[in-house]
Amino acid sequence: MGRTMEMNVEPPLHWMLHPRLEKDAVAVGDLLLSRILIMNDANFPWLLLVPRCVGAIEIIDLAEHERMSLMAEIAQVAAALKMLTACDKLNIATIGNVVPQLHVHIIARRRGDPAWPKPVWGQVAPLDYDPRALDHFVETLRDRLWLD
Amino acid sequence: MGRTMEMNVEPPLHWMLHPRLEKDAVAVGDLLLSRILIMNDANFPWLLLVPRCVGAIEIIDLAEHERMSLMAEIAQVAAALKMLTACDKLNIATIGNVVPQLHVHIIARRRGDPAWPKPVWGQVAPLDYDPRALDHFVETLRDRLWLD
Repeated sequence: MGRTMEMNVEPPLHWMLHPRLEKDAVAVGDLLLSRILIMNDANFPWLLLVPRCVGAIEIIDLAEHERMSLMAEIAQVAAALKMLTACDKLNIATIGNVVPQLHVHIIARRRGDPAWPKPVWGQVAPLDYDPRALDHFVETLRDRLWLD
Repeated sequence: MGRTMEMNVEPPLHWMLHPRLEKDAVAVGDLLLSRILIMNDANFPWLLLVPRCVGAIEIIDLAEHERMSLMAEIAQVAAALKMLTACDKLNIATIGNVVPQLHVHIIARRRGDPAWPKPVWGQVAPLDYDPRALDHFVETLRDRLWLD
């Protein structure tokens, strides 16, 4: 019985996307370390990178080689997003005050977008995507990142 | 004369801290890549890392080895800040919509701080530090990071 109770507090064995991210974003594909998602908000081209590391909340929870991979994937995805959107500025952030699972926001900002020049969080209500525009965004991003 | 005009559009030869960051923050010291600053806002323990790379605006403007160094310095400084503040969450971000010079915010967040759980930007007016508290923060951070 003691053993059963111990097992109850063990961390999960497999990485799973946090249900809130599952709900708020759509999957694009997986890089070696991270899952790429698009936030369901047509106000901004807004991606998330979620390292598939069980229990990681902070960047400093990752092993050094995972941090280096994360930086490489941030650069890869940010460059693709900048190329696709011709944005004026990239905003890149790990906040996680509400959803603890480590996730990196990579957002393409444009002068005159609905929150400019403020950061995007809490500024404007999310705007639904036209489903075909969202599909197109997923596909062009997958092409650009050589995901098959 | 053509040559003179060309020289006028060359980038500056030496890195200089952006005047707005000079005004809004105090210097802690230099790591190999980045200058560490403390934001003049006692609401939050709030650091900036500014890579001393001429002309860098985005993380993807850095060379790959500079990005890897930046990630290592982010982790080093974030771990020190977490240790010193026993914070609940780290917020780490490059925004730069107003001040273009590449700078990374590393902010120690606490449940119940003046902006919690929102990101800090634009939430509450900056609060002046007690000068001795700020000196103490600079010194303990320098000690923790082995800056002499």
